This record gives sequence, C-alpha cells and structure tokens, in this order.
Amino acid sequence: MGNDSSLPSAGAYKPLTEEAIARICEAVGEDACVNDSDELRELGHDASEFNGLPLLVVEAVSAHQVQALLRLANALHFPVTPRGSGTGLTGGAVPLFGGVVLSLARMNRILSIDRENLITVVQPGVINMDLKKAVQREGLFYPPDPASLDTCSVGGNAATNAAGPSCIKYGTTCDYVLGLEAVLPSGELIRTGCRTRKGVVGYDLTHLLVGSEGTLGVITELVLRLIPHPPAVTTLVGLFPRLSAAMGAVASVLGQGHIPCAMEFMDRHCLELVGDCLPFEGVQESGAFLLVEIDGVPDVIQREIEAIGEICLECEAVNVLLAPDSHKRSQMWDVRKEVSLRVERHFPLYIPEDIVVPIGRIAEFVEGLPEMEQRYGMKIYSFGHAGDGNIHLNITAEDRRMLDRVEEGITEILKRVLAMGGTISGEHGIGMAKRRYLPLELSPESIRIQREIKKVFDPHLILNPGKIF
Amino acid sequence: MGNDSSLPSAGAYKPLTEEAIARICEAVGEDACVNDSDELRELGHDASEFNGLPLLVVEAVSAHQVQALLRLANALHFPVTPRGSGTGLTGGAVPLFGGVVLSLARMNRILSIDRENLITVVQPGVINMDLKKAVQREGLFYPPDPASLDTCSVGGNAATNAAGPSCIKYGTTCDYVLGLEAVLPSGELIRTGCRTRKGVVGYDLTHLLVGSEGTLGVITELVLRLIPHPPAVTTLVGLFPRLSAAMGAVASVLGQGHIPCAMEFMDRHCLELVGDCLPFEGVQESGAFLLVEIDGVPDVIQREIEAIGEICLECEAVNVLLAPDSHKRSQMWDVRKEVSLRVERHFPLYIPEDIVVPIGRIAEFVEGLPEMEQRYGMKIYSFGHAGDGNIHLNITAEDRRMLDRVEEGITEILKRVLAMGGTISGEHGIGMAKRRYLPLELSPESIRIQREIKKVFDPHLILNPGKIF
Repeated sequence: MGNDSSLPSAGAYKPLTEEAIARICEAVGEDACVNDSDELRELGHDASEFNGLPLLVVEAVSAHQVQALLRLANALHFPVTPRGSGTGLTGGAVPLFGGVVLSLARMNRILSIDRENLITVVQPGVINMDLKKAVQREGLFYPPDPASLDTCSVGGNAATNAAGPSCIKYGTTCDYVLGLEAVLPSGELIRTGCRTRKGVVGYDLTHLLVGSEGTLGVITELVLRLIPHPPAVTTLVGLFPRLSAAMGAVASVLGQGHIPCAMEFMDRHCLELVGDCLPFEGVQESGAFLLVEIDGVPDVIQREIEAIGEICLECEAVNVLLAPDSHKRSQMWDVRKEVSLRVERHFPLYIPEDIVVPIGRIAEFVEGLPEMEQRYGMKIYSFGHAGDGNIHLNITAEDRRMLDRVEEGITEILKRVLAMGGTISGEHGIGMAKRRYLPLELSPESIRIQREIKKVFDPHLILNPGKIF
Repeated sequence: MGNDSSLPSAGAYKPLTEEAIARICEAVGEDACVNDSDELRELGHDASEFNGLPLLVVEAVSAHQVQALLRLANALHFPVTPRGSGTGLTGGAVPLFGGVVLSLARMNRILSIDRENLITVVQPGVINMDLKKAVQREGLFYPPDPASLDTCSVGGNAATNAAGPSCIKYGTTCDYVLGLEAVLPSGELIRTGCRTRKGVVGYDLTHLLVGSEGTLGVITELVLRLIPHPPAVTTLVGLFPRLSAAMGAVASVLGQGHIPCAMEFMDRHCLELVGDCLPFEGVQESGAFLLVEIDGVPDVIQREIEAIGEICLECEAVNVLLAPDSHKRSQMWDVRKEVSLRVERHFPLYIPEDIVVPIGRIAEFVEGLPEMEQRYGMKIYSFGHAGDGNIHLNITAEDRRMLDRVEEGITEILKRVLAMGGTISGEHGIGMAKRRYLPLELSPESIRIQREIKKVFDPHLILNPGKIF
C-alpha cells in the first residue's frame, strides 16, 4: 500500500497527558477507569501475537460513557481502541498507538428476547454462548458459532463479522444483525437498520459497520434476528485415504441437495498430530477426516445422515461412524482446538491463516501446499469448513529466524488463493495481521473509496487507528 | 429535510448540449444511443406515478460503455439515471433532471452457473424469473421473489434490495449477493465482495451498493449465491372472521417452529374487492385471508401443512383448504395482483405504500386503520407478508383533489409504523416517493453520514440525483 500521509503513523498521536487522563476520568466516571499497570498490559493484547500498551482502559457500562470518551478523543486527538473479549486473531483490538482501550465487556446484558417477533436486543459484551443458551430456553436459535464461542462477545462478532462451521447452512454474523446502535468517532449516537426482517430506508449502514473491525463506530447495542431452534441434530464422521476423496464426498452431499449445518475437515498433517485424540481406528494412517452435522426434524435427519454415510462410502471412505454419542461427538469437535494448541507448543514459529477458496477447489489447494512447504521451509496443518471453502492454515516453522521466508511463502499462498477465486480472510478479518496483504485482493480504487469512507466517519482518525489499511 | 445546498436542485444541471450528446454517442457507440422521442418518453418513467424526460438513452451492452458514459458525465456534470426493467414503484429510475438514462436491460446474459460452488455470475439485466428457471434446470434455487419477478431485473433487484413473500424463510436480495462489479460515478470499475460464502476483507461495499438505488454506482455484474432447489412445496389457505385471528395463527405457526416460505394475508377490504376471484366459499363475508406455503421434503411438509391447518382451525379459521391443485394455487397468488389492478381502476387517487411492523403487531396496526381512513377520507386495502411484517397499503381516495389530506394521513400512518418499531419501506425503497418521509425514520446524524458517503462515491452528484435524500 505504500505510504499515505492521511493515515496515521507511529508519531501521529501525542502521548496522552496526565491532564487528558484526568479529563477522561471526569467525563466517564472514575469507576469506569482502569490504570493498574498489570491490567493495562493484560488489555493491550488479543489472541494474536500482537501487543500494545494503553495508558488508560475505560470499561464502559453505558453508551453515554462511550459518547463522552469519543467526544474527548475527537477533540484532543487521542486514539481509542474498542475491545470486546479480546479473542480476535488479527490484532484488531490491540492499541497500536497506546491511548485508550475502550472495553465493552461490562455492557453484557441481554435486554430482551422477543419470541413473537424472533428478535433479541443485546449489549455488545454479551458472550456468544450465553446468548445461545438464553434464547434456546425460549425455543430459539442464534446460529453464528465462531470457534471461541464460549468466550467471544457478540459485539466483537459483529465488529469482525465472525462466523464458524454453521455458516454453510446459516450464514455469518452479518446475516443476523438487523440493526445497531453505535457511537460515531464524533461522539454522535446513531441507530441503523431496523427491528424487522425487511427494511430498505437509506444506505445500509448496518452492514457497513458490521465487519469494520471497530474502525467506523463503537457498537453499543445490537438487534439480532433469531430462528426457531432446530428440533434435533446428528453427526457423522468419516476417514478417507486422501483429501480429494473427502472433498468428492462433500461435493456429492451438496450436489444431492443436502444442507448440513457443518462440514469440517482435517488434513493428513493434523491427523498425524492429533489422531490419538480421535475415538477411531486407523486415524493416523488416513489422509483426511470429515465431520458432517445435519439438523432438523429427527426422522428426516436420520434418513439424511444415512444417505450421507452411503455417499462417503461411495467416495472411498475407509471408516464411517454414524451418529456417535454426545461424548464422542464433543471429543471430535474438541480435537480441532487441540491442533492449534499442539502446533503452538511444538513450533517456535506459528502463524494462523484464514483463507477461503471455492468449495470445489479445496482439495486442489490443500494438495498443492506440500510444494510450498518445501520451497519455503514451512509445515502447514490445514483444517476448516469444507462446506464454505474456509480453510484455517496453521503455518509453522522450526525456527523463528525463518519468519521472512515464511512470510514470502504466505504471500505466495495468498496469491494462489486469489487466483483460484478465493479471498484472503474468511472470518478473522484484517486487523494488523493482514494489512500488508490487503492490496493483493483489493484494487487501489476500492481501497481509496474505503479510506474515504473511514474519513467520513472518523475525520481525525482516532478510532482504532492502524487497522485494516 | 429542508434545503441543503450540497444536493442538487432543479437548476443544478445545464441541459445536455448537442455537442455533449455527440461526444456521448462517440464514446459509447451510436448503436447504444437512443434518441427517438417515443422511446425517450417510454424510458422516462417506471411503475410509479413519476415521470421524467431524458435527452438521451444509452443502452449499454458492456461495462466499458458504462465507464465511458460516467467518465463523460463526471467531466461535463450531466445527470445519469441507471435503469433496469423499470418495474420500481418509487420513481427510483425516473430521470428527475433529464440528462441520460442508462439502461442495463441489454446486459442480460447469465455468464455462468457453478453447480459445485453454488454460485451464478450474471449481468444486471437478467430477468429474475429467467434466472430462477435457468438455475432450476441445474437443481438450484435463487429465492428472491418480488411480485414483478416475471419482468424485473436482478440488477434492479440488487439496487433496491428487493424482496418478496419468501423473505420469511430465505431473506432478501442482499442475502444472495456475494459480490459485485460496479462502475463508480468517476468511471472507475471496482469489484466488491467475493465468490465465496465467507469473506471479511475491508469494508462491506457490496451491501453498501445493494439497496443504494443506483446512487452510488452502476452494477455491471453480480455474483449470486444459490441453494439446492427444495424438492417440493405445498400450500394452505384459510379464511378467518377477523385479521387478529389470522395473525394469531401466524404467531402460533412460527411459535411452534415452522418456517414457511410464504405467509401472505389480505384484509377485509381486499376480500370485498376481489373475493369473487378466489375459488372459495364465503370469501366476501370473511375478515381475513391467509395463504401459507411450506417447502422441503415431501412427507415432512405434508405433516407440517396438516399441523398448520390444525393451528388455523384452533385460531377460528372458518374455512381451510389444504394443498390446492396448482391451478387453484396460481389463482390465489394472482388475486393479489388483481387487488392493485382493481384499486387503480376504481379510484382516481391511488398511492401504494410499503411499510413493515413487527409481526406481532400486524393485526393491531391494520385494525387501527379504519380510524385513519375516516379522519383523512381515505380507503386502504391492506395485504402483505405476514411472516415478516411487511404490509402493502393500497391507499385510495375518491377524488384527486384530496391528495394533500391523504398525504397528511400517510404521514400519520408512517409515524404510527415507527412508533410500533417498524420501518417506512420494506422492499420498494425510497426513490422519489418517500424522500419527504426519510427524516421521520432517520436521525439528522444518520442522514448526514449517508450524504457524505454519497459524496465520496459521487462528488459531482451526477448519478441518479434527487433520489433517497
């Protein structure tokens, strides 16, 4: 992207003075201010490798406090980095230029669950799983399911347009956000969208804010769409000799009109690493693992899962397990997290990537990785969402000094992704981690328009500076 | 909204000179230029009451021509009004300030249908129904179904975020647009979004363009998401003594976890008007009509439609007809169009409105209309999408001279809609028809941000001026 004088650089913000800190604390209330050095350090990073150090953390409990803080930031030109639960993987919540971290974690109330109109109104700090459980008690379902759903917040999910395995059937967070209340960098509060499924009044500011990674406004309330909770769910797992065989099964399942609520795969490297955790025979010798979940009416999904089992066998599956008990099922879901943990433990250099290729090219893409591994001295553990083409590449090397070479390799991989008609981030976002790769996917005209939109919302570039662009 | 010197007024654009017309024709090619006066008149209106008269129509067959035209418009400051099939109901495609109408109707090719990856790439002029038929031949389904689906274009659908009865289960056009190619008012061509279900790279320009009513860019290509075609569909119709009873049935159906692909209602006035067209007993004496469609696996939807029939009877339905034959079914769908036709024929003053209230308040809203009818001398025929709260109010009066009073009444109705948590346009958009009401729903801050976004895309305000704001 080169330099652009209109975007902030390291020296763009003066350090926050004692006087400014005093004014902030007066504006938002002492109770909301945290300046204990341990906590500042703790809230200076997310789940990525990036770190920053805020001079102050404001833990808001109301939109008024958010407004007061941003009004001051806009007047005094200090950076504010909004933060949900800090589970992001791209440094989106890291205060790159110090300043203030604005935590929304204490705004964690579910304000209403409206069964008749199938909506819920929530504050941004509500934990995804807490919302899922609360609406399930009303017979309702909130589908978005990022891997961190036990700890991530719905506000952070909206800010990053997070998604997970269920995307193939249910879509991503943006498909469930009907409307927002947000504070703009000016301190003005706006409401976007509506509380109904349809609404076409003016430009779609809701979807512009969703996925903007906290750079355009701070979400202080969300109106979310709910659906009836599916009555039942069932699972199948299969082992295949090669990834291409597993992907053949995926194509057949979709081609025959089934719409599973998850189709997850792991490659050979992952199976070597964590095969011992899977309650299966012959795992470590297999070339690919596939997990398919289907939800709906019990007798229908029973028929469907059996049909899917047949498809897997026709596609050379060497072992198929239908409808495992819930203990085995949760073991199989947990095993994916184990990949990341073991990879992190084994390798001094570990970079998680999050790309998407068209479903029909997953096998071709993953089977092309060994050549890249060899050329750039990496080892790549691939797993992901076969049903939507979203692959998590766990890129590793034996030595941190290989970083430059590995980054060259990543650039090559991302170019290959784009050449296949894919995208360089499926659900983690850009944050700090992928800024450098943005021009691979977006044209200069697109980036220019987006930067100008940023300036419309945030003329003084005080909100989450240094992210995306 | 008052005046704003930054937005165009009637005198803002000089008439297109002979020389400018010659330059346009040279740039886009003579074949693309239409200046026959009958055709200019014909392409100066849409399906609304509004009219305009362009000095030239450009019928583009390529994005290059669109770029050439907009580059000239941006340099010479003449207005360009993009146009799909002209089926819009709010004047969105009417050339308010003359200038050039840019028709996309000839860019009507389906470029690819990718069965494996569940996407199709199309030009904007493809007719909605043609796309539906083409993908159905591949076993696939493109759900968005505005009432004009036999004649409306998918580009126009995207520009207005059009939707129809199936929204309750399948969402609106924006839920199916994965990516766009669009020409900006500068003449620059950008690609937004991606070809995959997931993608979070930069701001969501796709959703910003969708629903922007041709004011931010001209869509020249769309990447649309497809789903497997549902194997079967079945229908139920019910007559109820009162609308509140019908809406009680709607609430019970949704509350018991059914997700129909249509739940359409008509009120008492509509039944008086077109009851003779319905293949039913006792229609004209009834208070409300409900049509429910459900799609999916045959035996499951059979069970579901029977359960829904039971629910209707428990909710006081006086007559329920399960799974009518396809002839009767299409008669019942057609009857709604008949309402608009007869209303238009009977009444010298006819204004179609398109509002949304929360599903649970439809009955309360519609049953409050007689008081408004009386107060403002109107008669209102209501029908619409009970499953998503979107109601089409066919507002009529016996005398055109009552327009001012009727418009006062409409303002009152829209205020009531908003007080109930609804929105003033569900699927028709703002265009020219609802500009005056925009500040009822959007705050000054929201309108300011939207106008500034407009200026980022279109600094000389050449693209579809006078719409939305």
